[in-house]
Amino acid sequence: EVVPTCERYAVRRLPFARLADGDVAFFERLMPGRVLTGQEEVKPFNVDWLKSVRGCSQLVLKPQTTAEVSQVLRYCYERNLAVNPQGGNTGLVGGSVPVFDEIILSTALMNQIISFDKVSGILVCQAGCVLERLSEYLEEQGFIMPLDLGAKGSCHIGGNVATNAGGLRLLRYGSLRGTVLGLEVVLADGSALDCLTSLRKDNTGYDLKQLFIGSEGTLGVITAVSILCPQRPKAVNVAFLGCQSFAKVLETFTTCRAMLGEILSAYEFMDEKCMELVERHLKLSRPVADSPFYVLIETSGSNSTHDEEKLNNFLERAMASGLVTDGTVATDNKKIKATAWVYGFLWSLVPQVLWSLRERITEALTHEGCVYKYDISLPVGRLYDLVTDMRARLGQSAKNVVGYGHLGDGNLHLNITAESYSHSLLDAIEPFVYEWTARCSGSISAEHGLGFKKKQFIQYSKPREAVVLMQRFKAMLDPKGILNPYKTLPSAP
Amino acid sequence: EVVPTCERYAVRRLPFARLADGDVAFFERLMPGRVLTGQEEVKPFNVDWLKSVRGCSQLVLKPQTTAEVSQVLRYCYERNLAVNPQGGNTGLVGGSVPVFDEIILSTALMNQIISFDKVSGILVCQAGCVLERLSEYLEEQGFIMPLDLGAKGSCHIGGNVATNAGGLRLLRYGSLRGTVLGLEVVLADGSALDCLTSLRKDNTGYDLKQLFIGSEGTLGVITAVSILCPQRPKAVNVAFLGCQSFAKVLETFTTCRAMLGEILSAYEFMDEKCMELVERHLKLSRPVADSPFYVLIETSGSNSTHDEEKLNNFLERAMASGLVTDGTVATDNKKIKATAWVYGFLWSLVPQVLWSLRERITEALTHEGCVYKYDISLPVGRLYDLVTDMRARLGQSAKNVVGYGHLGDGNLHLNITAESYSHSLLDAIEPFVYEWTARCSGSISAEHGLGFKKKQFIQYSKPREAVVLMQRFKAMLDPKGILNPYKTLPSAP
Repeated sequence: EVVPTCERYAVRRLPFARLADGDVAFFERLMPGRVLTGQEEVKPFNVDWLKSVRGCSQLVLKPQTTAEVSQVLRYCYERNLAVNPQGGNTGLVGGSVPVFDEIILSTALMNQIISFDKVSGILVCQAGCVLERLSEYLEEQGFIMPLDLGAKGSCHIGGNVATNAGGLRLLRYGSLRGTVLGLEVVLADGSALDCLTSLRKDNTGYDLKQLFIGSEGTLGVITAVSILCPQRPKAVNVAFLGCQSFAKVLETFTTCRAMLGEILSAYEFMDEKCMELVERHLKLSRPVADSPFYVLIETSGSNSTHDEEKLNNFLERAMASGLVTDGTVATDNKKIKATAWVYGFLWSLVPQVLWSLRERITEALTHEGCVYKYDISLPVGRLYDLVTDMRARLGQSAKNVVGYGHLGDGNLHLNITAESYSHSLLDAIEPFVYEWTARCSGSISAEHGLGFKKKQFIQYSKPREAVVLMQRFKAMLDPKGILNPYKTLPSAP
Repeated sequence: EVVPTCERYAVRRLPFARLADGDVAFFERLMPGRVLTGQEEVKPFNVDWLKSVRGCSQLVLKPQTTAEVSQVLRYCYERNLAVNPQGGNTGLVGGSVPVFDEIILSTALMNQIISFDKVSGILVCQAGCVLERLSEYLEEQGFIMPLDLGAKGSCHIGGNVATNAGGLRLLRYGSLRGTVLGLEVVLADGSALDCLTSLRKDNTGYDLKQLFIGSEGTLGVITAVSILCPQRPKAVNVAFLGCQSFAKVLETFTTCRAMLGEILSAYEFMDEKCMELVERHLKLSRPVADSPFYVLIETSGSNSTHDEEKLNNFLERAMASGLVTDGTVATDNKKIKATAWVYGFLWSLVPQVLWSLRERITEALTHEGCVYKYDISLPVGRLYDLVTDMRARLGQSAKNVVGYGHLGDGNLHLNITAESYSHSLLDAIEPFVYEWTARCSGSISAEHGLGFKKKQFIQYSKPREAVVLMQRFKAMLDPKGILNPYKTLPSAP
């Protein structure tokens, strides 16, 4: 059983109203059959995917329309009831579950695709659409989503936008700040803000939607999203390579960026320890010889012959110059009937198998017990030094200290595991990890957000004036502070 | 002589303080030798590039550092003096010059490059760096700026960011909302906000910098910019093609997007009339046979052989299926020694000559007399209907009605010329053009911003609630309204 957050972290409940029978009756009239109150029904909405935080909400609401979200928030605002917006509940920083008894507003039933335009590639959909469902829908039409991440089978596009999710395609298609074209948002007082334009360019006034992207449900509830989707690449290849040092991982990156150019769509890395855990807990087999580091390189392009030629040229160079010592390649090119050896690399037909090794590290880690997760942006050259330093610092007190992540974006996932949660281990990690990051002018949260667990560390990456300004925006848009309280920002002084 | 804006548009001056001798003395102590007060010296800063609006400022300040900008604004805020931030003064909507006697704060001397990291491609520089200078600097290091536009020889990067400039590379590298990584901004009261991070990913709190991107100097003065720069493509090709109808322009677009894929970096179009004006006023010669429409397609890639093969395949298909009737191609591939015929297309070595035909349309138009400029986002299929409808509506009362623009981004530049300014012609154009755009859910300003000339039309593209919220942001960040008054937003009720 997960320890309730308010106990473990000794948080004080803010003076919101408490849920009364009349409130539940109101919601049941508003959305009959879509109001959960039973303890067992509500339970999974109270606990995060990592089982690291637990709220004690007694009520889950499942609106289907923006109008319903509006009515819910107008009522809660009036009554001073706190609200926790929730998408697929796959967040990693405790932002998606209540801290106390906040009402959970789930987007699970807001899952309609509103429109898709094949000429422009612009998709408009409700916030509760599951990312993988959208991907499947688009692929049939010759397009893809501009983002992809391990949690795709559960996460909602609204949650992705609310947390400014990064993921596996950012290197190629950029961040949601560029690809999200419009949003519909319901503000704390229940008023709806329609910025759901479907235009690639629009410079009429301030770009309000940007404030909601990455605001983790603290400024408004995203109800619909308009997003620019790239064409589906005609050819995808994945190379999985072994490197003998982190310096070689870096040199391999600059080499492949130059040689693969516009077709490079991912450059991920993982250390030996990650591979061990994925093998042990998920029974995935290592496709290349033992190495201290592994990299996964993906190409996406419009001409399989050209792409394979570019990739082969790169692989030949990487092998000849000793940057990589072993590797395997997978392609979705149906012309390659079975496996084949090309320039010393085995080519096969299973890109997804290679991707699984990288995507399922998070899952493998959860099998180790308690996981302390850090999601750090750093100058790429310093990326692995933090892992080495942390390993030396913690010694035997941690079970594992592993590093992996989106090297091409300068984004390290540092994970530390232990049999169970311990305050003293946490004290050995924090604030050391944040101070280390701040000394390199890095970010203490590259893509996961701040949520509940990281909010008090914001000052390591943002100056005081910026935090104060954020608090003023919060106070302006949500003067009663009912939206996702205890999250993202430290409380105003 | 340009008619002063306040007279032509009958604007009422807001109750800011008037400049006194003591103010000038203060500024001269603060930045000796960088304070302009002579009428002739100040004159060019009072008039926009189009010579369409004119302010009557008596003072231009040229700070060199953020600290100086801070001191200027702290003083002006205290004294209630209005300030007009100005970059290269190349804006097209009257946003960059004063309406009355606002003090002009020029970034012309803030032109230092602060750092460039060749591994990450991240450039940090002061706001007054001229775009073309930055481009030249980066090209020597194997990188390019993620934006390019006709005014590159004069415009400042700070002004580009303040107006969220689009331009010629948006199709490939996305908008500044994705490529700008950090900003340093001085707020109305003189306090500096340091969000100048150089990280590709940072999800620590709200993304404050986004509010300043595209705010046209009304929320703060951008003093430094951190921006992600793409690698310089190894091969660039430009095809200039003639099409017999706008339907064929559209079909050529979808065909080339599919066949050129990741190497397509621009898809621009212009109508016959644009070509005539460029020929007549700038003595540029038409490279292909007379056609009602022309398109310019650019490819940028990492392998000239692959790129030329893709382009040739596309051109062959486009010609064979009658999408285009004539064309010429220019390449920067030095291996092609002179011109050569390939599949019926003449290849030569002068991409910039073909680009000039498109980039210099704005300049050619100014030779026609008075120009009414509209910068519209529309669903791409409706893009040219607005030109046709406007031409029919205006008949003989306009000299020319022309359409060109960034078709790949759904962005039309509609321009109407007349011998001289006329209220009655303006009344025939507006609000017709805005109503037409609103009916298609388009944007009345795709990339130029609202500035002085378009601010009262914002409601055609934004709902009332959004405008009210923008006004609240303005009031919060600049309670006295001293920053670029009379611009971007309609006055609060």
